[in-house]
Amino acid sequence: MQFKILVVGKLRNEFIKAGVNEYLKRLLPFINIKIEFLPSFSELPEKMALLKEEEIILKNIKNNEFIIILDKNGEKLSSEEFSNKLFKLTTLNPQITFVIGGIYGVSENIKKSSKFLLSLSPMTFTHEFALLILLEQIYRAFKINRNEPYHY
Amino acid sequence: MQFKILVVGKLRNEFIKAGVNEYLKRLLPFINIKIEFLPSFSELPEKMALLKEEEIILKNIKNNEFIIILDKNGEKLSSEEFSNKLFKLTTLNPQITFVIGGIYGVSENIKKSSKFLLSLSPMTFTHEFALLILLEQIYRAFKINRNEPYHY
Repeated sequence: MQFKILVVGKLRNEFIKAGVNEYLKRLLPFINIKIEFLPSFSELPEKMALLKEEEIILKNIKNNEFIIILDKNGEKLSSEEFSNKLFKLTTLNPQITFVIGGIYGVSENIKKSSKFLLSLSPMTFTHEFALLILLEQIYRAFKINRNEPYHY
Repeated sequence: MQFKILVVGKLRNEFIKAGVNEYLKRLLPFINIKIEFLPSFSELPEKMALLKEEEIILKNIKNNEFIIILDKNGEKLSSEEFSNKLFKLTTLNPQITFVIGGIYGVSENIKKSSKFLLSLSPMTFTHEFALLILLEQIYRAFKINRNEPYHY
């Protein structure tokens, strides 16, 4: 089982970097998650930015990877439902790749390349918050799956 | 316009403290938010914990305050909808008080004392994450209301 997270854009906030490192450390006994930060083209008009970001995302995805896109309009799951779904997926797909888009999200093509659009909330989060929240929810998913105290 | 946030439980994670301070600082030009940390009784059985926490929450709420409870089963709003609703409320209610419960949430009595249960997500967040996310969404709400760049 391998998880990879592709993030369009950099981490600018020190507290987010610290939080990401904290949850990567907590996750280490369960899984070693690779995070790749891809260039953002948010200074360009939306359509052009999405197209350029699409090209780079596709270059960083291999055929054997199961793609989960974080999208505000994706599936809305409780933490328990997310845990169940995630661990069902890992039985069939050894490599899970999450994609967090830039300020405009991801292109329709990228969405179509995925069988699972996941929504963390109907609210909009920065890509930095989305990464931190996703890591905490993956950690929570492991604790739920292992029936270890953390999730109430 | 005054906002207060009552939080059952302490902040343990340094990165959360840093993030909370960052967004309180960013919010200062718009509003000075007061955060009060109330004792948590999570070591007690759920019913007893909720009852003790209820007593302390009620002691920290005045009659003229409009109470917004963060609850996983509350209203699910986009950031734009949250901004609109928040600023409508502030025209009628100068004092808005948010309540973030402990690991068991808040008691039914506390929920009944509020006219607005707000859900940040169908997923479960720690009270620390809930506070950080709430502050970011309040900041985003101001930027949306003022039509200033931040929210895409």
